[in-house]
Amino acid sequence: MTTPSLPQDIQTIIQDIQPPDKAIFNKARERSEQLIIPPRALGALLDMSERLCAIAGTLHPDLSSKAVLVMAGDHGVVEEGVSAFPQEVTPQMIRAFLQDMAGVNILARHAGARVMVADVGVAADLQPLAASHSDRLVIKKIRNGTSNLAQGPAMTREEAVQSIMTGFELASSLIATGVDILATGDMGIGNTTPSSAIGVVLTGASLEEMVGRGTGVDERGLHRKYEAVRRGIALNTPQAQDGLDVLAKVGGFEIGGIAGIILAAAWHRKPVVIDGFISTAGALIAHALCPLCMEYAFAGHASAEPGHQIMLAHLNLEPILRLGMRLGEGSGAALAFTILEGAIKTFTEMKTFEEAGVTT
Amino acid sequence: MTTPSLPQDIQTIIQDIQPPDKAIFNKARERSEQLIIPPRALGALLDMSERLCAIAGTLHPDLSSKAVLVMAGDHGVVEEGVSAFPQEVTPQMIRAFLQDMAGVNILARHAGARVMVADVGVAADLQPLAASHSDRLVIKKIRNGTSNLAQGPAMTREEAVQSIMTGFELASSLIATGVDILATGDMGIGNTTPSSAIGVVLTGASLEEMVGRGTGVDERGLHRKYEAVRRGIALNTPQAQDGLDVLAKVGGFEIGGIAGIILAAAWHRKPVVIDGFISTAGALIAHALCPLCMEYAFAGHASAEPGHQIMLAHLNLEPILRLGMRLGEGSGAALAFTILEGAIKTFTEMKTFEEAGVTT
Repeated sequence: MTTPSLPQDIQTIIQDIQPPDKAIFNKARERSEQLIIPPRALGALLDMSERLCAIAGTLHPDLSSKAVLVMAGDHGVVEEGVSAFPQEVTPQMIRAFLQDMAGVNILARHAGARVMVADVGVAADLQPLAASHSDRLVIKKIRNGTSNLAQGPAMTREEAVQSIMTGFELASSLIATGVDILATGDMGIGNTTPSSAIGVVLTGASLEEMVGRGTGVDERGLHRKYEAVRRGIALNTPQAQDGLDVLAKVGGFEIGGIAGIILAAAWHRKPVVIDGFISTAGALIAHALCPLCMEYAFAGHASAEPGHQIMLAHLNLEPILRLGMRLGEGSGAALAFTILEGAIKTFTEMKTFEEAGVTT
Repeated sequence: MTTPSLPQDIQTIIQDIQPPDKAIFNKARERSEQLIIPPRALGALLDMSERLCAIAGTLHPDLSSKAVLVMAGDHGVVEEGVSAFPQEVTPQMIRAFLQDMAGVNILARHAGARVMVADVGVAADLQPLAASHSDRLVIKKIRNGTSNLAQGPAMTREEAVQSIMTGFELASSLIATGVDILATGDMGIGNTTPSSAIGVVLTGASLEEMVGRGTGVDERGLHRKYEAVRRGIALNTPQAQDGLDVLAKVGGFEIGGIAGIILAAAWHRKPVVIDGFISTAGALIAHALCPLCMEYAFAGHASAEPGHQIMLAHLNLEPILRLGMRLGEGSGAALAFTILEGAIKTFTEMKTFEEAGVTT
């Protein structure tokens, strides 16, 4: 396939993004009515299929090549004691990803998807790992972890742009290799804290609604997390109408990267499956920059993190799975691949009443 | 594998059924705590895995061999005008199943499962079809369709027993060939009417809660359906404490067959995935006969049929998928296979913190 020349700035990306093909969407709905099922009896599977057709611009979308792109970064705010795990777990889990032993690996393998990890801001040197896994881990560090958002901006506006463009370019590279559908994943100890802050700023929800226990902080840790998010917002005054400002002041490098993946999917007219709480914070940033890009997005699952449902409602996305997962990594999105692929198979492989000789 | 000699009557089956292995369940929960995820972060995937371990009696259950067993039968009550489709659609859809073109075929293929169809009471001669698809269609007719339950009992008590034993024997035959996990499926125009009647009698729900539009009857058809269910119950007075009586008076041959499949799964200590509204009516019969058998059952999905949620709550089952499907055939259960298999893979293939060298 040919690689179109990529835009070099976010404004051009946003201007380029077009809605999915409405005429194909209508044709897909017509075909749904003729399949050998009672009207709309495949429920959400038909909704997914029709959207996938409109995105692909064809009644025969192919989802056989699938990839999960895991964006990894660390967070200065961990010094506030907001996480149940120490920061050293970020590189340890990346090692586990590369050894194919983590949740996202197993569920991606189950779904027939590959996993690619990108270090966009891990506070440790992953070069040795990258050298031995060059096809699976790329180092595109913005910086070794964000600054503590409870004390000042997490990053500069330039770094926010850089994190988004990095996600955009990495996703574009995967798409250039023939990937049909992407999933977003995340790794970064402490990253439910910036995600909660983004959720509060961009959905207008309260701290109480949006701040949860993440990987399992105790009552005191939860209180520290509230405080960190509250102070981060009060101190930095992120502006909800400016997605870059929100990302810079209370976000994270991997969250910006995820926003970039979603923009890339929309720009290349490919579907993208958003994972849980952190990925959806990335989607909130992408949506703030370009609401239209969400027409290329599917919500893989509803996380157990309480604020996630509010984020999804803000984005007008219905989760494919509701399994109480809260692992991140892209694990829920990888599992949702199996449902989306099942959906499109029913749509493309099923006969119509006429073809099957069944009385309507 | 060796085939144990099968019990010849329902009472013996029920007496034989034992609960899943509690000690293995506890060991599985211990292992869950050591996996490289935050506590319970795989949510329902862990719950499923732990139950699958207890059912299999091992921490390494294998779900690689999967089958959907579709029970097909017709219903005398269609003469009341309760369905949007004519009865001739039952054999037409069975032909579609055998030609691998229906929803259940596509989703079973997606999940790596085979589909077996059993005619336990279709009101048409399927012998010619069976002759050319002997590995896919078995004829075990109780009778050519039930009697009209709105005018008298749908079947005799002996026929009710026969339908259950037929399901039990067919499922046992599949298990004897090495099948690890079964799904129940149904085909039979009009079968949401007996299923609703069973739901009303066995859950205590009202007609208004339990009677829905099935494959899509209009307002007048829905009224006729209410009336048929109301009269069927008033006239036949099925006794809720006697599952066989309920099945005989307001049930269906395929519904009895499905109850038999569930009893077989429990008797053989194999997991069984229940499909939607009709399959869950079968599960209500199995539960009325032997509550313990439900410990081997998983609810594949929450149907769009409104009474389904009440049935599932009565059985204390949490649906794996919530996709607004209402196709029957076993289609939702087949798709749920992919989630159960993903779950058990995460459980068996994931490393522990210690194995992976990740800080807890």
